[in-house]
Amino acid sequence: MTSTAKNLLARTLNIAKIEIPKHQLAAVRVGEGEEAKAPLQTIDVVLPGSDDVLVKINWTGLCGSDDALITDGLAGNGLTMQPETKGIAGHEGAGVVVAVGDNMHHRWKIGDRAGIKWIWSICGECEFCTNGGGEELHCPNQKVSGFTAPGTFQQYAVSDGRYTTRIPDGVSNEEAAPIMCGGVTAYSACKKSGVRPGQWVALLGAGGGLGHLAVQYCKAMGMRVIAIDHGDAKRDLCKSLGAEEFVDYQTTEGVAAEVKRITTLGAHGVVVTAFTKQAYETAPSLLRPKGTMVVVGLPHDASVRAGSTPFDIVQSQLKIVGSMVGTAKDVEEALDFTARDLVHPILTKGTLAEVDHFVQRMLAGDQPGRVVLKVS
Amino acid sequence: MTSTAKNLLARTLNIAKIEIPKHQLAAVRVGEGEEAKAPLQTIDVVLPGSDDVLVKINWTGLCGSDDALITDGLAGNGLTMQPETKGIAGHEGAGVVVAVGDNMHHRWKIGDRAGIKWIWSICGECEFCTNGGGEELHCPNQKVSGFTAPGTFQQYAVSDGRYTTRIPDGVSNEEAAPIMCGGVTAYSACKKSGVRPGQWVALLGAGGGLGHLAVQYCKAMGMRVIAIDHGDAKRDLCKSLGAEEFVDYQTTEGVAAEVKRITTLGAHGVVVTAFTKQAYETAPSLLRPKGTMVVVGLPHDASVRAGSTPFDIVQSQLKIVGSMVGTAKDVEEALDFTARDLVHPILTKGTLAEVDHFVQRMLAGDQPGRVVLKVS
Amino acid sequence: MTSTAKNLLARTLNIAKIEIPKHQLAAVRVGEGEEAKAPLQTIDVVLPGSDDVLVKINWTGLCGSDDALITDGLAGNGLTMQPETKGIAGHEGAGVVVAVGDNMHHRWKIGDRAGIKWIWSICGECEFCTNGGGEELHCPNQKVSGFTAPGTFQQYAVSDGRYTTRIPDGVSNEEAAPIMCGGVTAYSACKKSGVRPGQWVALLGAGGGLGHLAVQYCKAMGMRVIAIDHGDAKRDLCKSLGAEEFVDYQTTEGVAAEVKRITTLGAHGVVVTAFTKQAYETAPSLLRPKGTMVVVGLPHDASVRAGSTPFDIVQSQLKIVGSMVGTAKDVEEALDFTARDLVHPILTKGTLAEVDHFVQRMLAGDQPGRVVLKVS
Amino acid sequence: MTSTAKNLLARTLNIAKIEIPKHQLAAVRVGEGEEAKAPLQTIDVVLPGSDDVLVKINWTGLCGSDDALITDGLAGNGLTMQPETKGIAGHEGAGVVVAVGDNMHHRWKIGDRAGIKWIWSICGECEFCTNGGGEELHCPNQKVSGFTAPGTFQQYAVSDGRYTTRIPDGVSNEEAAPIMCGGVTAYSACKKSGVRPGQWVALLGAGGGLGHLAVQYCKAMGMRVIAIDHGDAKRDLCKSLGAEEFVDYQTTEGVAAEVKRITTLGAHGVVVTAFTKQAYETAPSLLRPKGTMVVVGLPHDASVRAGSTPFDIVQSQLKIVGSMVGTAKDVEEALDFTARDLVHPILTKGTLAEVDHFVQRMLAGDQPGRVVLKVS
Repeated sequence: MTSTAKNLLARTLNIAKIEIPKHQLAAVRVGEGEEAKAPLQTIDVVLPGSDDVLVKINWTGLCGSDDALITDGLAGNGLTMQPETKGIAGHEGAGVVVAVGDNMHHRWKIGDRAGIKWIWSICGECEFCTNGGGEELHCPNQKVSGFTAPGTFQQYAVSDGRYTTRIPDGVSNEEAAPIMCGGVTAYSACKKSGVRPGQWVALLGAGGGLGHLAVQYCKAMGMRVIAIDHGDAKRDLCKSLGAEEFVDYQTTEGVAAEVKRITTLGAHGVVVTAFTKQAYETAPSLLRPKGTMVVVGLPHDASVRAGSTPFDIVQSQLKIVGSMVGTAKDVEEALDFTARDLVHPILTKGTLAEVDHFVQRMLAGDQPGRVVLKVS
Repeated sequence: MTSTAKNLLARTLNIAKIEIPKHQLAAVRVGEGEEAKAPLQTIDVVLPGSDDVLVKINWTGLCGSDDALITDGLAGNGLTMQPETKGIAGHEGAGVVVAVGDNMHHRWKIGDRAGIKWIWSICGECEFCTNGGGEELHCPNQKVSGFTAPGTFQQYAVSDGRYTTRIPDGVSNEEAAPIMCGGVTAYSACKKSGVRPGQWVALLGAGGGLGHLAVQYCKAMGMRVIAIDHGDAKRDLCKSLGAEEFVDYQTTEGVAAEVKRITTLGAHGVVVTAFTKQAYETAPSLLRPKGTMVVVGLPHDASVRAGSTPFDIVQSQLKIVGSMVGTAKDVEEALDFTARDLVHPILTKGTLAEVDHFVQRMLAGDQPGRVVLKVS
Repeated sequence: MTSTAKNLLARTLNIAKIEIPKHQLAAVRVGEGEEAKAPLQTIDVVLPGSDDVLVKINWTGLCGSDDALITDGLAGNGLTMQPETKGIAGHEGAGVVVAVGDNMHHRWKIGDRAGIKWIWSICGECEFCTNGGGEELHCPNQKVSGFTAPGTFQQYAVSDGRYTTRIPDGVSNEEAAPIMCGGVTAYSACKKSGVRPGQWVALLGAGGGLGHLAVQYCKAMGMRVIAIDHGDAKRDLCKSLGAEEFVDYQTTEGVAAEVKRITTLGAHGVVVTAFTKQAYETAPSLLRPKGTMVVVGLPHDASVRAGSTPFDIVQSQLKIVGSMVGTAKDVEEALDFTARDLVHPILTKGTLAEVDHFVQRMLAGDQPGRVVLKVS
Repeated sequence: MTSTAKNLLARTLNIAKIEIPKHQLAAVRVGEGEEAKAPLQTIDVVLPGSDDVLVKINWTGLCGSDDALITDGLAGNGLTMQPETKGIAGHEGAGVVVAVGDNMHHRWKIGDRAGIKWIWSICGECEFCTNGGGEELHCPNQKVSGFTAPGTFQQYAVSDGRYTTRIPDGVSNEEAAPIMCGGVTAYSACKKSGVRPGQWVALLGAGGGLGHLAVQYCKAMGMRVIAIDHGDAKRDLCKSLGAEEFVDYQTTEGVAAEVKRITTLGAHGVVVTAFTKQAYETAPSLLRPKGTMVVVGLPHDASVRAGSTPFDIVQSQLKIVGSMVGTAKDVEEALDFTARDLVHPILTKGTLAEVDHFVQRMLAGDQPGRVVLKVS
């Protein structure tokens, strides 16, 4: 930050009478591998650069990727928390802007509500950034919150002002937080299914953290939803959220046959938010010819394949599409569904001090909906 | 056929002074499994029903599926020649109409040139037939030439008049034959790649029977072609057909790296007409993010998967699409490229008596281009 | 019909114990031009051909095109009732199959509920019919109910069995009737707008016979609806059907400014079901850049243009798309929305004897919703 | 520019040993309305800001919009040269970077070849800029070369470094210049036609400055081209550039009938680069049902409408789409066709001193191809 910017920032902060403390609490990763933890520590507050804003985080979501990053669960795919994070994970942050960098005054003012998401910044200049059509997610110069940049498990998070998301009226911070990653991931996957209003979509893992959001987005987009998951609690949840049918994969012999019975010819689309081998093996068989399977869930089991035999894919001319979070625009759209009262995450609430507790619960697989942690 | 139709047919044939013999030669399957053969036999000529035409076959292509059907190579996928074929394979026929069924006089007249393709007929009434968009290929009531209906390995083949293809001026029968299946399969796969003019497509198996046609279609559609195959003969062939680059997968260490070098970010599309495990494992790695892989080639090895890990598919948001022959409309379009002198199959010519000889050569994998057999 | 078919039909009818009378009542056009009327007459019942079914009409809708055809209102566009109609208009028929032609037994049985629509039959063979993608509507060999074939203003209407629509459970005949033309016209226009869930669509003439259906389809497809019409009655109607905003074009100074105020940048799509010059002049100005205007309403005033200056169209890169009724598939989809309780036409009920009365009311422009007439 | 940036720039320039003069020649507008001229003047060279580069212009194209801007020909549409231009028109510039702003060193270095186009800069932040899909062209914060920012009719032009175009190897500066606006306008219009390889496109004004480029782009994209224009010179030109058919609209009675004769059912697409009333009235009639008309040419006659009667548009379900220049990405793609030797503008060469001379020739309508002026 240039000295001009620093002066300007100081003046602005003074005007707004907001005091930014020198120190803050953060959940900082210690240890390595499965044993790693993220206990609270007191660390310095970092001031924003000229293109940044400083966001006082009220709530942060806890996403499956956070678990994995803290405990090195994605190391096999080459994803480990980078030194630039200073050990601070988290990429579903919602709060309020408390400082605005030199170049960001035309976009942000102190007091604006702001969200921080998986992708922390993009370069805006490479082929992917300039191509549009969702390609920005593949910007090779991107920074990622909690993975290559300090994340939202801290009270004051610096965020690139050009890629920070404005939280609209009608969406609380605690609902906004999990939409930053979980919500938009579900939303953009549902869009990629290409299922039109009145057609059938089958959701594998419909009762889960991503799945229960997908049920609602699909419903709001006019699709007919077959929720696939197990247990009466998830049945009730999915039905209450708008699923027209529920198929319990543990008690139903022949899930594909049941989906065919409901749809006559198979589902037009399948979204796999589950991450089991079984889910990926079942998914293609639920589709009608020319149907689309959207790949979202990331299995721990490296032997899982999203796909099928060439014969099956050719014979039914299936389409298989990968979907990863969503663009800045997708996040805005996803939030808008909540502002319009059409989509609400099911929340389990905790505090930043409880990161490790909830990481354990999520790894154990018994954590329904989305976890949000009160930060400040 | 009603008696009215028979009378009318008799009258028509009389007018045209065409004599249809009572007997004909056909290559009829005898035996089972790998040992099965298709030697010439004399059999009855069947007259067309009211919705049919009778086509005197001049040339028939010999396609990989014929090999497989004759020798039960697709039995593992549930595909074996059905009794309705009377042992007559073949689905790339080109010839001339010699008799027209009662209901087909508004569409066909004696002397018209006509082609018979993989799909022999569709019902025209089911959801797939009425949906358009290429869904007719999934008509559950379809008949398939040489698989569920007598094929083109005979001198006089009955063909459903509503689904028979008109061969346009400018296309010889011997070129038309292999376009009925091989050509249209390559053409519709190239279309499904979604690669736009000026973008890169990589063709795995570019020098093969389907691949060398794909090179030409892609070129004619304005794509930039990277041909991937092996050997100098195939290099020369692919280059002469319009490939801008050739990558020899046997002598190139790092095919993906080489494709990245050529394209900077990876190919926009990959079409897999090869059918090896290696090809399917390589294909996704050639794509740029959001690229499309088209699945065409059918491996004998049941362990091959078209797809990748969910992680890879998600990370690069890849699209994988199956493609199977093409619609009646696609065949017309594919023929039109030949009529316009843009696409020509490389032909090896034989006679119907040589079916077994060429089946053996194709199974041995040393048969370049497409085989066409002179029938009458 | 062959003698075989006649025998079969006789047998079938006998089995079903349905008696088809020799005579029936029909509203038959007499006179010409604006003075023409369509009073009830007793005429012969026509038996179905081998590809037909005979439908006992319970309810027929009365559509604006019927008015125009009866009173020569579209003569300027070359559309006048053809002699083949025998003076019988009507193309929104719903009833029950009472006789099945020889070739239609695999599709229809006596007692099936069936609908007759604007397009009475297509050839199924021309380029348009085989192209899919909605092109069947442009089949040059099509017959049109009440325009080139006898329509539904009679008690027993012959209908091409291949193009007759099955009415699904959950849709009454009186609701099905107006969906055959009015419903599907609104539905396919809304689809052509390309407006995605969560985006804004503006409907010009939202309170009218087509418009009030468009409000419901758009709503069910997840769009946000700005209804544009005039008067408190239409405001209440549109709001109750799901419009989020209502703009009264008579009391609002600056309709475009108001739409911009609501949408910030303009509507993503506009559907013009109105048919005034004012509506067509206003429509493009409601769009955001790259927005889509769907042309549906047919003005009587020949000076009206759907379009704008090249400068305006270029400057905002607008898209203008014409939409005409819908395919057989579209009708099925449109009916499905009613079966799922998402779309219901507002009905004014009369009897077939009242054709002239309602024609006058519609021409006077004071007939809300859709008119359906009890036939038998 | 901050003092840091200035220092850095000075240092960089020093290193590169490039001397930037304090003064330069420019064609500066004097007068108003039709009488306005743009004679050479000596003016100051402006140094680039921190986000800019300074481009030494070698060649500038002279586009129809320049004529219009200099002579107030678009004043009726609210387009007049703004004071910020300092009277310097021109938006098809090609040259070499001679100074790089503080923030642009990661993108540009001295000696890079660079192009300046119609849109001089976009904000990169508004909904249009972030939506992708070509919406950046509607950025309300954009600056336009020669219209709201000083243009390329000067020897040293400042250009926003983020939106300046890199000229690839294989494209000379004199060819690159007219592609900056004319080329990309033709290219993106041809893309918007949606005409697929092997289908017919009709080009109205095919022999003109935009049209002769459209012929080449369409050809390179695999379309079949019907060139429509008049005179033998244009016939020869269009044929030599790849048009399959030429229709002389002055000597052909019934242009639509002739296009139908060639295409059987009408063209799949029509691109109107002409700007006469006749062209716009003819265009829709050349289309087959569901065909697309692309609107490009801007008539001087304010009574011209791009469109047709609602009846005609509905009856044939036509699509009408406006197209305006192209995105930064489109320009890169357009240049690539030249680098690949597929598209070359026909050039008439002059010097910057001859602006007025060529403006007069273009207004008189007797200037074929594109005009490029040598600047330095």
